[in-house]
Amino acid sequence: MKLWGGRFTGEQNELMKQFNDSFKFDRRLYAVDIQGSQAYASALHAVGLLSAQELASLRSGLHIIKDEFDTGKFERNFGDEDIHTAVERRLTELIGDAAGKLHTGRSRNDQVALDMRLYCMNEISKTVSLLETLQHSLIAQAEANLSFMMPGFTHLQPAQPILFSHWMMSFFWMFERDRARLNDALKRTAVSPLGAGALAGSPFGIDREKIAAELGMAAIFMNSMDAVSDRDFVAEFLFTLSMIAVHISHLAEDIVLFSNPAFKYLQIGEAFSTGSSLMPQKRNPDAMELARGKTGRVISSLFNVLIVLKGLPSTYNKDLQEDKQALFDSVDTTEMVLSIIAGVINSIEVFPENMLAQLTEEMLATDIADYLVEHGVPFREAHQKVGEVIKFAEEKDISLSEIPVSALNHISSKFDADVHKIFDFMRAISKKDSVGGTAPQAVKKQIEMAKEKLGM
Amino acid sequence: MKLWGGRFTGEQNELMKQFNDSFKFDRRLYAVDIQGSQAYASALHAVGLLSAQELASLRSGLHIIKDEFDTGKFERNFGDEDIHTAVERRLTELIGDAAGKLHTGRSRNDQVALDMRLYCMNEISKTVSLLETLQHSLIAQAEANLSFMMPGFTHLQPAQPILFSHWMMSFFWMFERDRARLNDALKRTAVSPLGAGALAGSPFGIDREKIAAELGMAAIFMNSMDAVSDRDFVAEFLFTLSMIAVHISHLAEDIVLFSNPAFKYLQIGEAFSTGSSLMPQKRNPDAMELARGKTGRVISSLFNVLIVLKGLPSTYNKDLQEDKQALFDSVDTTEMVLSIIAGVINSIEVFPENMLAQLTEEMLATDIADYLVEHGVPFREAHQKVGEVIKFAEEKDISLSEIPVSALNHISSKFDADVHKIFDFMRAISKKDSVGGTAPQAVKKQIEMAKEKLGM
Amino acid sequence: MKLWGGRFTGEQNELMKQFNDSFKFDRRLYAVDIQGSQAYASALHAVGLLSAQELASLRSGLHIIKDEFDTGKFERNFGDEDIHTAVERRLTELIGDAAGKLHTGRSRNDQVALDMRLYCMNEISKTVSLLETLQHSLIAQAEANLSFMMPGFTHLQPAQPILFSHWMMSFFWMFERDRARLNDALKRTAVSPLGAGALAGSPFGIDREKIAAELGMAAIFMNSMDAVSDRDFVAEFLFTLSMIAVHISHLAEDIVLFSNPAFKYLQIGEAFSTGSSLMPQKRNPDAMELARGKTGRVISSLFNVLIVLKGLPSTYNKDLQEDKQALFDSVDTTEMVLSIIAGVINSIEVFPENMLAQLTEEMLATDIADYLVEHGVPFREAHQKVGEVIKFAEEKDISLSEIPVSALNHISSKFDADVHKIFDFMRAISKKDSVGGTAPQAVKKQIEMAKEKLGM
Amino acid sequence: MKLWGGRFTGEQNELMKQFNDSFKFDRRLYAVDIQGSQAYASALHAVGLLSAQELASLRSGLHIIKDEFDTGKFERNFGDEDIHTAVERRLTELIGDAAGKLHTGRSRNDQVALDMRLYCMNEISKTVSLLETLQHSLIAQAEANLSFMMPGFTHLQPAQPILFSHWMMSFFWMFERDRARLNDALKRTAVSPLGAGALAGSPFGIDREKIAAELGMAAIFMNSMDAVSDRDFVAEFLFTLSMIAVHISHLAEDIVLFSNPAFKYLQIGEAFSTGSSLMPQKRNPDAMELARGKTGRVISSLFNVLIVLKGLPSTYNKDLQEDKQALFDSVDTTEMVLSIIAGVINSIEVFPENMLAQLTEEMLATDIADYLVEHGVPFREAHQKVGEVIKFAEEKDISLSEIPVSALNHISSKFDADVHKIFDFMRAISKKDSVGGTAPQAVKKQIEMAKEKLGM
Repeated sequence: MKLWGGRFTGEQNELMKQFNDSFKFDRRLYAVDIQGSQAYASALHAVGLLSAQELASLRSGLHIIKDEFDTGKFERNFGDEDIHTAVERRLTELIGDAAGKLHTGRSRNDQVALDMRLYCMNEISKTVSLLETLQHSLIAQAEANLSFMMPGFTHLQPAQPILFSHWMMSFFWMFERDRARLNDALKRTAVSPLGAGALAGSPFGIDREKIAAELGMAAIFMNSMDAVSDRDFVAEFLFTLSMIAVHISHLAEDIVLFSNPAFKYLQIGEAFSTGSSLMPQKRNPDAMELARGKTGRVISSLFNVLIVLKGLPSTYNKDLQEDKQALFDSVDTTEMVLSIIAGVINSIEVFPENMLAQLTEEMLATDIADYLVEHGVPFREAHQKVGEVIKFAEEKDISLSEIPVSALNHISSKFDADVHKIFDFMRAISKKDSVGGTAPQAVKKQIEMAKEKLGM
Repeated sequence: MKLWGGRFTGEQNELMKQFNDSFKFDRRLYAVDIQGSQAYASALHAVGLLSAQELASLRSGLHIIKDEFDTGKFERNFGDEDIHTAVERRLTELIGDAAGKLHTGRSRNDQVALDMRLYCMNEISKTVSLLETLQHSLIAQAEANLSFMMPGFTHLQPAQPILFSHWMMSFFWMFERDRARLNDALKRTAVSPLGAGALAGSPFGIDREKIAAELGMAAIFMNSMDAVSDRDFVAEFLFTLSMIAVHISHLAEDIVLFSNPAFKYLQIGEAFSTGSSLMPQKRNPDAMELARGKTGRVISSLFNVLIVLKGLPSTYNKDLQEDKQALFDSVDTTEMVLSIIAGVINSIEVFPENMLAQLTEEMLATDIADYLVEHGVPFREAHQKVGEVIKFAEEKDISLSEIPVSALNHISSKFDADVHKIFDFMRAISKKDSVGGTAPQAVKKQIEMAKEKLGM
Repeated sequence: MKLWGGRFTGEQNELMKQFNDSFKFDRRLYAVDIQGSQAYASALHAVGLLSAQELASLRSGLHIIKDEFDTGKFERNFGDEDIHTAVERRLTELIGDAAGKLHTGRSRNDQVALDMRLYCMNEISKTVSLLETLQHSLIAQAEANLSFMMPGFTHLQPAQPILFSHWMMSFFWMFERDRARLNDALKRTAVSPLGAGALAGSPFGIDREKIAAELGMAAIFMNSMDAVSDRDFVAEFLFTLSMIAVHISHLAEDIVLFSNPAFKYLQIGEAFSTGSSLMPQKRNPDAMELARGKTGRVISSLFNVLIVLKGLPSTYNKDLQEDKQALFDSVDTTEMVLSIIAGVINSIEVFPENMLAQLTEEMLATDIADYLVEHGVPFREAHQKVGEVIKFAEEKDISLSEIPVSALNHISSKFDADVHKIFDFMRAISKKDSVGGTAPQAVKKQIEMAKEKLGM
Repeated sequence: MKLWGGRFTGEQNELMKQFNDSFKFDRRLYAVDIQGSQAYASALHAVGLLSAQELASLRSGLHIIKDEFDTGKFERNFGDEDIHTAVERRLTELIGDAAGKLHTGRSRNDQVALDMRLYCMNEISKTVSLLETLQHSLIAQAEANLSFMMPGFTHLQPAQPILFSHWMMSFFWMFERDRARLNDALKRTAVSPLGAGALAGSPFGIDREKIAAELGMAAIFMNSMDAVSDRDFVAEFLFTLSMIAVHISHLAEDIVLFSNPAFKYLQIGEAFSTGSSLMPQKRNPDAMELARGKTGRVISSLFNVLIVLKGLPSTYNKDLQEDKQALFDSVDTTEMVLSIIAGVINSIEVFPENMLAQLTEEMLATDIADYLVEHGVPFREAHQKVGEVIKFAEEKDISLSEIPVSALNHISSKFDADVHKIFDFMRAISKKDSVGGTAPQAVKKQIEMAKEKLGM
């Protein structure tokens, strides 16, 4: 069965059928397609286009079809070019002519727009929930390793000592922004296009707001032409997934680095590692590398959709069918990655002694400058002076704390015996105690706020 | 003057200086850089790191520098590698040592993050306002040409008759979503990173919330490492600009098409057209083609930033300097395009007779099916029947309205003499009168709601 | 069976197994994987690492496995994480211990690099051949409709009359460049990485050139670290596919346009069109719209791979596994699209009378200017004069050929009675007779050269 | 002066002038624009459209204009909307009416296509030459540090010992492929579009081959419509630049990593490093980070052009003006990056003792397996056995070489006293002596071949 054969005389080309066939990937929309049809049937009944009996028959037929899909029993027919056709065809088999009334005033243009929106609403919620699980893991690791010190890098060069927990929590906030973006995207997704018809609107006076409410959508479209062609919500969802992917790639990069024996700050569980077919000693952080690699997949799906949309004329064009696979793939990928990464974070073993071993006195250079600032030296001058201190230590091949005060005084008279208290990494860390800083108290506060965000 | 020379012994490579030089493009941040420094100076004063006199001196010096930039009198020095260095260098010249205190506890890492955020806050507002101007133009054209009928296309094939004003308003809602996205992005942009230092936080107890409030920012960062590396807001702004570009590309495609003499539904003003260097008769819709072409530029800027971010390790890496030119270019491009397009829309001359001439009875095929539906035929069957009607007319080479009712009755007994009332385009349009439909009443309602959105 | 379990104590996480599993998509490499192993077995035998009997056993085992895959009988085992593991596992079942010798000095790193190269070599050839088929179709249509005149557009505005065949042939040359690019890409693809091992090279003195020759590869890698990480050839193949996609998108845009009834220059066969589920009259050029939409898919696959590669450290990283699905999808897509488009071109029905009806005298404006040039007027002045001629005709609301010579003489004294010979479209076309021009003779010449390129 | 004002009555919008203005960026094409005009003038003379005197006058005028640009004396006029207009306007001022003859049969459509091709031809050559310089630097460093051993990583985990020079040379071959790609791209760039006119070809019988030869172009276009719209060469050049950028990003990633004190295998010169405004001790590898960041810029330029091209109808559309800035920016960026990186490579200081210190016996695990292979154990079994050996050493907390042979024999009876010869890193390296391997002899051979490629 085709929904449109009436005016055609010839047959469709065999290859064209395959080319045009979207059932192979849009079948995953069956539940939302049926959900939309249930709501539309009610609306048709409300305006008298379906009798109570026809409505009951449709409802029950749709219910059966959903069951068939749920249990893997739905059998595709040769002519089912998409999920909408397949459902209508099967419905006709099950309940006869009444099935043919379901498409009254409805086009596949508004139908597929609805299906995609319902699908996205579901997947946005699922993604939010997976992000929360990952955020829980991050908090748990931060709490379990709250006070371990490690080098903080900028430009991948040692910068200042920080807490391991502070590093771990930095990712919490990235994912927190991702959650916020998803929730914003949801608002623009939960808008009902039903009643837009092919492009011009419905002549049957159906109650668009009521359908929307029934489907859990907060709003309806204000322009039928826009309704059938708007794919902003697909792009916006893909953008939020792209940002998640970018954040995952940061986390992956850090973990891959810190797993190298030159650092060995941590190790991910064997359960998430693999070995080598050639080299017997290998234990590779494959989970994180793969997750990092999949950034390309997600970002390029966003671009796929943007390219498809670029330069199209108004309303529905068949190009829009190309919004699906990119989205499905990125949703599946992200959901898998988020689950894996939560597992990886839980599996991390931390080696605080290795982190500690890489803290060096040079990383306290800013603290020496701050010391001078506290003694009245303008920061820029203090910075310059400490540069000289470092050069001095390098020339003498001694550590900073080994420089005698007298030698320091040749550089600045402000140095005093108490300068040596600076060479205490935890002291340096503890001083960064304003909101968002790396001091233990500040990190505890941070974790509290994080828990609040999750309603913990 | 360099801000970091102390520990170096050699000279920087000449080419490296050029490579590293960001002043040539980040100088446009001068006003926000100075705004940030003013706020930071207050904060330093509040914790006693600046005396009242030093604060006054800094304030006045910063004020002078802003004036110099405003009036084009600021002179760059050879060593000014970025806007931050340039301002601090000049400040030192103007007020001496106190200038060196401004960087206390502040790094260029948190400083540039702040500058970029303040810049984006300003440009988001500007973009919102330009969108509103364009939306006003769309409404004005829709109102001025409210009842003109034109063919509505799907797949660029004639589908159903619609109103010109309905077509024009369809773009209003795209830009309305863009405004909403910009406002959502703003929330995540107006977050203050000041006090994050290089990566670890501030040891000087400055009041981060107060600075944020002074800068019109609703929130502060909760993690200093995240604060210095987060560029989500740049990507998110670029994404919203990309969606605007995609919407402009749709509008451009339609207008370029409708300007072709085969349609000649409309013509954009000469003021936005150009001619040919070879062909004297040409009048090309260049403004729209260029606007469509610039979609590539904006989308690829988003992509640029996402690629830069992909796979970076934690905190600041120099790669992040590459967030600026892509953003600046896309902001400039979008602001220019929006201004131009508003002008183009205002300049449009409409040729309703040409639109009318392309309405054909075939575009009422759905109405014939709806007629059968109203006479009790299930839609799917009705659709099939109308397919046969069309085939019949094609074979006889007559128009649909010329088919005698007797002939129609061979196809379906439900056809009656009143079938001929269908062949009235305005009737077909007027029936699509539910919210968002193309009926004149519905479009009027739509315009009212649009005006409400703009606070008109 | 895992190829690397020896040093591990724990179990791999279940989800991780799925995440890591590439067999579901790399199984399509089975034939080339086995081809590579056959060649490698010979090389191992040549250096005495396999006895003649072991070689025979391996050969025969590999042959059986290929048969199993070919006939769909290969059964995956639970632990088969990729095609390489699956083949080795099955080989062990079939021939016992000797199977374990096949991996001597070989890593999956060089193995998969080889597989991907052999795969690309095959698919490049296939793509070249599909391009040729399409080029044949273009030539056939050009020849069948050689002398039909149509408007040529620039900026989608009428520019100059051209031949339909000239338009059609313009696509021939785009695809000709694509063929050339594919052949260039092939050179850099047919380079053997076997013998690179995991990254450091082979300690067993195998003859790398001989293996390469046996596999039809013209060259071998000069650096083992480069050999295992180079994915340039994947990106380059995807780039050539992207250019094909862009060319298809041009063709699609033209055909979709020219199928609109405002033009109706041509119509694609019903076999490649579809109808509407709502509007019974519709006949949409879906094949071309879908083909245009798929441009996004192919271009974004290229970017997927480039993003994956960006910023990776040396040699093999697991991220590289992400080169496959993007490539496979784009190869499949392009091969399908090329087949479809060849069919579409063959199916095109041309309406020369509609093209002719849209030729207007204004499109001869350049010819009038050329007339003045031939009478000694510098072109720039002639162009200006013809601008005035057009304005005059517009003001008087007459056609250009209706302007009396006397009136023309007010604009330029060079106009003479013979100016009216200009208003002959075929004359204008025939004058563009240098190589590459639209004159019938030039197009015939062009077709001859095209046939030569195809060896016709 | 505008080249097309004749038929227009109104004024162009002021903002539209800015929008349409390409002189601000296409002025860089002046030399190639004039070069093209010189060649075209000759061709016009050859067919009698220019007298000898006019030709001389044109030649001399063009020469003067080139001088004015070269010396920075060219003054832009208000109406110069692009480089072509500017040159023709100035030419008119200099030599009067004859200037107006230069555009005979030429459109800006074929003119700008030619300019862009000549520009690309020059820049391709320049890029090839910069690549060679960088390749020389790589060879020099490899030779200077030929025999230093370092850990080779896969998955960023220690894999096998390699030579530093082998690592360095791996980049040579990436850039060698880039050179080959550039030379292939050149073939498709050096094709002359002159004579295509606006789209239909030239009516004046000019000798297209001769012009091409005069301009150093090997071929001419075979279809005028294709000639004016083909931008494949821009995309192809940008693709080759993208691959260069990807290769640079690999090199940058390695160098940034190896500069971290946890590795400290090398250090780039101070001349290419920068410090921190806050942390006095910092010395950051900024050059490499920036170079890595700029990958985003180059790849996205390619993407920009592909998006612009997607979905355009035939021949010239104004969108094509958007091919320029993306290309110019990426050419400038790449040329700058290549120069910088060559300098960085030259400046590298190597710390062989740090590399050596990170070689561990586990990295010889494959060699132990190879030992068993040489004693007749199938590789897969050997691999498994060595896994057990490693586990044994880990449990006993001893190094591999400390395991007594008796203990090894519990795992495999094939182990003998001579097993200890394996624990010699240089021995392991030296065994990988087939072509492309890391053995000193193989690397020497590799360097020889590299020099041959460069004609050294």
